[in-house]
Amino acid sequence: MTKIAIDAMGGDHAPKAPVLGAYQAAQAYPKHEFFLYGQEEQMRNILPGDKPSNLTYVHCEDVITNEDSPTFAVRRKRQASMMQALKAVRQGRCDACISAGNSGALMVGGLTQVKTLRGVERPAFLVQVPALLAMERPLVFLDAGANVDSKVKQLWQNAVIGGAYTEAVFKLKKPRIGLLNNGREAKKGNQLAREGYEVLQADSQLNFIGNVEPHELFKNRCDVLVADGFQANMVLKSMEGTASTIIQLLKKTIQEGSLAGKLGGLLLKADLKNLAGVLDANEAGAGLVFGLRAPVLKCHGDANEQAFKQACQQALQLLSSDLYGQLADIFKAHPLPESLEKEEE
Amino acid sequence: MTKIAIDAMGGDHAPKAPVLGAYQAAQAYPKHEFFLYGQEEQMRNILPGDKPSNLTYVHCEDVITNEDSPTFAVRRKRQASMMQALKAVRQGRCDACISAGNSGALMVGGLTQVKTLRGVERPAFLVQVPALLAMERPLVFLDAGANVDSKVKQLWQNAVIGGAYTEAVFKLKKPRIGLLNNGREAKKGNQLAREGYEVLQADSQLNFIGNVEPHELFKNRCDVLVADGFQANMVLKSMEGTASTIIQLLKKTIQEGSLAGKLGGLLLKADLKNLAGVLDANEAGAGLVFGLRAPVLKCHGDANEQAFKQACQQALQLLSSDLYGQLADIFKAHPLPESLEKEEE
Repeated sequence: MTKIAIDAMGGDHAPKAPVLGAYQAAQAYPKHEFFLYGQEEQMRNILPGDKPSNLTYVHCEDVITNEDSPTFAVRRKRQASMMQALKAVRQGRCDACISAGNSGALMVGGLTQVKTLRGVERPAFLVQVPALLAMERPLVFLDAGANVDSKVKQLWQNAVIGGAYTEAVFKLKKPRIGLLNNGREAKKGNQLAREGYEVLQADSQLNFIGNVEPHELFKNRCDVLVADGFQANMVLKSMEGTASTIIQLLKKTIQEGSLAGKLGGLLLKADLKNLAGVLDANEAGAGLVFGLRAPVLKCHGDANEQAFKQACQQALQLLSSDLYGQLADIFKAHPLPESLEKEEE
Repeated sequence: MTKIAIDAMGGDHAPKAPVLGAYQAAQAYPKHEFFLYGQEEQMRNILPGDKPSNLTYVHCEDVITNEDSPTFAVRRKRQASMMQALKAVRQGRCDACISAGNSGALMVGGLTQVKTLRGVERPAFLVQVPALLAMERPLVFLDAGANVDSKVKQLWQNAVIGGAYTEAVFKLKKPRIGLLNNGREAKKGNQLAREGYEVLQADSQLNFIGNVEPHELFKNRCDVLVADGFQANMVLKSMEGTASTIIQLLKKTIQEGSLAGKLGGLLLKADLKNLAGVLDANEAGAGLVFGLRAPVLKCHGDANEQAFKQACQQALQLLSSDLYGQLADIFKAHPLPESLEKEEE
């Protein structure tokens, strides 16, 4: 039996979306337990039916807002729903934590409460880029925004743990590792990218396939893509902005276009909706604060109940795989390259 | 009378596209002169009619390929068409240079041949992001890829010269300057972005409006967007990749969709073509190696004859404005902030 802690107060649609998502998960997975952390009065009146016996409210006095700085949240808001949910994981009362709240607070809270894996300095943010066109499965992309000005060592660590994630979640042996860069050649990019390339290339335990450019994310060139958090976050925000701009342009084209175009747009409408679905953040699944000793999942701020239910499912899948067992000792079998030991001194 | 030097051997469609583009420009602007640098035998048989008297072939023995390293190209291929075209600008025989060839070679060649403006250390690559949706005019974006690991001073210089460009080209007083970053708050981003924010914010001569996120490029938040070349290049490549992925998805949706969707797609086809046009690199205009003493324009590698003609037009417009006159002394009226003088020591 697995126990999932859900922060009921985080995200744009809290507490409704997390409460209903947890409710649906509790019904779909009756053998597991779900704990909703939040203000009990607010949570009580949301359920459309009776509360299932495997769904529990845990009352918390305080709430972390998006305006709170991460350190303020972690130090001064210990009674907040997010911190209490993380504490439950640290104390072994729960096995995983889910929140759509303040990302920075979840990252720092995860680091201080749940702690990092042996050999990992700082957790990375791991996201799955949806499988489109020629891709057989989602692309595992990390660090998607936890750490700026990363060191080469962090790129290497992310390659190792990202590889382990992909092996466990997609049952894929020796996943192809790529490095995000603005050109394919070894000498391309900024200093971090050039040094990262050398270290990844020299590590024979990694199936490193080289640099992958931002326009190649849907081209199935690698299974795991590593990057500095600032870079990756910029790329993801560019993709999001371009997609939403094009969909707006398309709507405008249909509205203002020729009569034939308008009619065509009406006929295409259902198919366009499917397309928008593929690109929808709610469908892409939750991100993972990765490198911690237990799963901490971050839903999109805009997450709806479906997204919370899906995050519960993701957490159950992660815990039913042997991933976290393997991660505990992963750096024993895969030691730090000598060139990085020097960097550490 | 203005004289434009065109590298006839650079780009995927050379020499046909540059030769025909220059031919069309020569016909459209009979008062100006156009010089095609390249292998004369190859250029000769391309024109569909007689050679206009304001179009001249300048034979060059050598050609720079995309595989040549910039320093190799600049040092060892002095007889190449690109280097000869740049040399013509340096020696005052031409007023501007256009090429679709090796970007790095054009950048280093521009730096060594045409030289930088007083006060500018290294040229930046300036591009115009097409005006979509709520935008009244294209967004001036620099450095789009010339320099990685930029210093704060380069961000500031780009803000000053990018502002002057926008004032001259779009007749816009006090253009709004933005800084590319992954969040709006002053403390967001990597070290360069945080320090850059402070310096731009403190300079009262700049109309600095703060950080602009990669998904806000089409939201009309600023007129000039400054960034490190690596960052900006990553963002542009992400946008390009997302747009092409969505257009492929849309085609697939139309092909594999419902019968209604297929019919709709056929009816929409002309409007979709218009949309693709808006996003087409050939329509976005040439980029500019900016910060040099004369215009050096870089066409997209895929540039067609229309794009070369348009680049000729851009060069004529730049030269007919007072931009380069103003740039010569721009840092006299806009001195380096004290905080950056320290950085220089």
